[in-house]
Amino acid sequence: MAVRTLAELAAELQGEVIGDDSIEIRGVAGIKEAGPGDITFLANSRYDAYLDETRAAAVICAPGTRSAPMPVLVVGNPYLAFQRIVRLFRPELFRPVPGVHPSAVVAPEARLAEGVSIGAHCVVEPGAVLGARVVLMPGCYVGHAVEIGEDSFLYPHVTLREECVVGRRCILHPGVVVGSDGFGFALDAGSFHKVPQVGNVIIGDDVEIGANTTIDRATTASTRIGDGTKIDNLVQIGHNVVIGRHCIVVAQVGISGSTELEDYVTLAGQVGLAGHIRIGRGATVGAQSGVPRDVEPGATVSGYPAIPHNLWRRIAAVIPRLPQLFQRTRDLEDRVGRIEHENEKEQVR
Amino acid sequence: MAVRTLAELAAELQGEVIGDDSIEIRGVAGIKEAGPGDITFLANSRYDAYLDETRAAAVICAPGTRSAPMPVLVVGNPYLAFQRIVRLFRPELFRPVPGVHPSAVVAPEARLAEGVSIGAHCVVEPGAVLGARVVLMPGCYVGHAVEIGEDSFLYPHVTLREECVVGRRCILHPGVVVGSDGFGFALDAGSFHKVPQVGNVIIGDDVEIGANTTIDRATTASTRIGDGTKIDNLVQIGHNVVIGRHCIVVAQVGISGSTELEDYVTLAGQVGLAGHIRIGRGATVGAQSGVPRDVEPGATVSGYPAIPHNLWRRIAAVIPRLPQLFQRTRDLEDRVGRIEHENEKEQVR
Amino acid sequence: MAVRTLAELAAELQGEVIGDDSIEIRGVAGIKEAGPGDITFLANSRYDAYLDETRAAAVICAPGTRSAPMPVLVVGNPYLAFQRIVRLFRPELFRPVPGVHPSAVVAPEARLAEGVSIGAHCVVEPGAVLGARVVLMPGCYVGHAVEIGEDSFLYPHVTLREECVVGRRCILHPGVVVGSDGFGFALDAGSFHKVPQVGNVIIGDDVEIGANTTIDRATTASTRIGDGTKIDNLVQIGHNVVIGRHCIVVAQVGISGSTELEDYVTLAGQVGLAGHIRIGRGATVGAQSGVPRDVEPGATVSGYPAIPHNLWRRIAAVIPRLPQLFQRTRDLEDRVGRIEHENEKEQVR
Repeated sequence: MAVRTLAELAAELQGEVIGDDSIEIRGVAGIKEAGPGDITFLANSRYDAYLDETRAAAVICAPGTRSAPMPVLVVGNPYLAFQRIVRLFRPELFRPVPGVHPSAVVAPEARLAEGVSIGAHCVVEPGAVLGARVVLMPGCYVGHAVEIGEDSFLYPHVTLREECVVGRRCILHPGVVVGSDGFGFALDAGSFHKVPQVGNVIIGDDVEIGANTTIDRATTASTRIGDGTKIDNLVQIGHNVVIGRHCIVVAQVGISGSTELEDYVTLAGQVGLAGHIRIGRGATVGAQSGVPRDVEPGATVSGYPAIPHNLWRRIAAVIPRLPQLFQRTRDLEDRVGRIEHENEKEQVR
Repeated sequence: MAVRTLAELAAELQGEVIGDDSIEIRGVAGIKEAGPGDITFLANSRYDAYLDETRAAAVICAPGTRSAPMPVLVVGNPYLAFQRIVRLFRPELFRPVPGVHPSAVVAPEARLAEGVSIGAHCVVEPGAVLGARVVLMPGCYVGHAVEIGEDSFLYPHVTLREECVVGRRCILHPGVVVGSDGFGFALDAGSFHKVPQVGNVIIGDDVEIGANTTIDRATTASTRIGDGTKIDNLVQIGHNVVIGRHCIVVAQVGISGSTELEDYVTLAGQVGLAGHIRIGRGATVGAQSGVPRDVEPGATVSGYPAIPHNLWRRIAAVIPRLPQLFQRTRDLEDRVGRIEHENEKEQVR
Repeated sequence: MAVRTLAELAAELQGEVIGDDSIEIRGVAGIKEAGPGDITFLANSRYDAYLDETRAAAVICAPGTRSAPMPVLVVGNPYLAFQRIVRLFRPELFRPVPGVHPSAVVAPEARLAEGVSIGAHCVVEPGAVLGARVVLMPGCYVGHAVEIGEDSFLYPHVTLREECVVGRRCILHPGVVVGSDGFGFALDAGSFHKVPQVGNVIIGDDVEIGANTTIDRATTASTRIGDGTKIDNLVQIGHNVVIGRHCIVVAQVGISGSTELEDYVTLAGQVGLAGHIRIGRGATVGAQSGVPRDVEPGATVSGYPAIPHNLWRRIAAVIPRLPQLFQRTRDLEDRVGRIEHENEKEQVR
């Protein structure tokens, strides 16, 4: 078990300690769960109140955070510092060892670089190319001519269909499907005829894809996910979608065919995007929103259909008063009717 | 094939027969599908009309139900009675036999209690502990140091990642993922850095988890699902979520990180909950609602954003009349303008 | 590599060429991705503008499309023609060969017709019946007494639970679950008791089911999917749902228990349907809509709750002006109040 003084941690993170820097830290935990001997972090001022409740021995804060009843380690990016410390106190224990499990079925025509680990009951088809130190956990399927870049990690039961490409240092969580057919049918004489989906999926470096997420292959050409993009669980990405670099796609989002996300786009949970639209660089779409058309770079939109977020908030605030608005309008109609009636009588007189 | 008289079934269910209790029952079916010789049930007065259409030989009803054209078995909870009768007429036929299939890969360091059944192509990692009579259907993955309580049943292709805990008598449907990484990234210098997710998932007793549902492990500490909670298909449960006992979570719900459900909460289909909120005991959230903040115990809320259900129903009723409301307001503005104009002329005169 | 003249393609598709029909076509691609030597298609007049940008050598259009800067092949249904041409230039390369992989576990009591292909690590339980040329890609699970019609194709990691039926020429994408338990519980004494789900799922001919989609078995009787229906990824279909023929169900739709779709219904992405309702023949439900009650045949509905689409569009157009409407109503109240006050003074005088 690692033990560090707060001073040692401060040196490692290039931070500054306010309070006793000689205390010993033995673990790391969230602010609600931390116990004596743990260090925790405060990344969001919404949770300031927890500073008085936590049992943590020390807390990592951003500059300018209010004073705390325990020693504070001040750093520029507390969440990033937390991320670095977690691995110190909780080393990765269960990393699979290199080698091919005897129950795996690996085609002799597949190419495995050094240090590859292939778990039990995996299947690797001919022409697949696995870079150095790639890990396939048990039960993964890697189709014909798939390429996986070095240091990528596939959790159990991932399916990579033929001719797809995964970059370096990617993480694919359990049940991910990459390269399933796009949803395309031509209606003729009362029946739908399948349009063959002969493109592929190309995933950049440092991409993470959440459990049971599905990414369809392109009809022709490629569905693309840019470097550094992080995708959560149960997301649906349609054929010929192009996602830029460093995007965040939260759980249960659906992106329809041929839509494009530029870099640094954030889609909150359960968002739906129509097909053939473009979401500009740095744009943010609020949770559950439905987006029927292009979104400008840098915009923040919400609602169904999505509109500028600030406008949507004002609308959300007045919607509960709609029944009263109808009543007020009825009252106005009565009052105006009475006035009109009175004025008419007046004129007649 | 089991055959019972209606009198025998009444004795078993402690119910009362109205009509001929000597008729023979040979099967059980829903009210629309039932044929001659079947018993069916009526649990919802909305379906009263089916009483005249069903071909069932007898029907299980609650006290006070309208008269029926066939013998009626009156019980306190018809749906519960139906549940008991189904197993009488349709015994479970396909229960896997105890033992380890030769194609399964079970670490010698795993501990299997008596009566455990491990299907073909399963993988059980070192340190896993499986209670008595646990069943793993084919293709399940059970990670390092996972614990599964007695009589739990895993359907094919379930993934339980390392250090997660499943209680007793749980049912995990095909494709369930428990313990995937929470979705946490720290932005630094234009890139997202993964925050290691070193907690686990702890699932209580008598929990059911639907097909392809995903439950993320905690960043630190545990994501928790309480005893008796039932979760439907394709649900997403984020890291550090805490769900109480006897909750109902319907299909395609998404629960964001660190949100808490107290006991007896019901979330209808496709609901989305924001992170770090609390849903009070016994609260109900209507289908497709988006919940951005805490919900009081016992409350029923609906809409996007969610508001009290009764208010939401009134709003849903007036929204289709919004275009007319705009027209009525325009009309009022015209009329008031005319009055003002007339009054001005009057004063001038 | 196939090479055809445009005249040859025109003959094959019974279309007419406008321009030079002697040019050689070497490939096929979408209008944005096409390069020199490729043929592409234009199926939607929204994309007319691409005609000037594409590098394609020829383009397939419907009659009456505006003139193009390259030879045009005019056909009645361009998308259908494209579908036929794709297979010409991109033959299916990776079709699994017939036979049973030695690592598959196939019960001797299962019946396999001629030409069946069973991939590595599949499991086929006793009583299963696989029609001619059925393909199971690696890691599929086929339960007791399942029937699969001839020429159906299961991608990796599909789960078909016991007693379900799949028709002919169906395609089940990776991770599909058919026959998971319906979500039914009877509340008694504070706990939910599982209602056994003893029905099955019956899928017609020519049905396609998207990756990680889940279809629950009926409580009693059958959940049914009609011939020619196409279902996208991550869709949830509840117990006892009945879907007609030639329906289109887009990604992440949820259909609650016992709801019925007549033929030719289209549900756009992320739609939610309540239970026990009926969607009439040819009806269309817009993306993300929530449908609480029956929909008439031929209707197009949208919104939450869903209303006629044209009305919903008018409402969506006025909602952003709601804050102003409140302001206008306040203004009117002021003006009417002033008039009333003036008139009163007038009367007193």
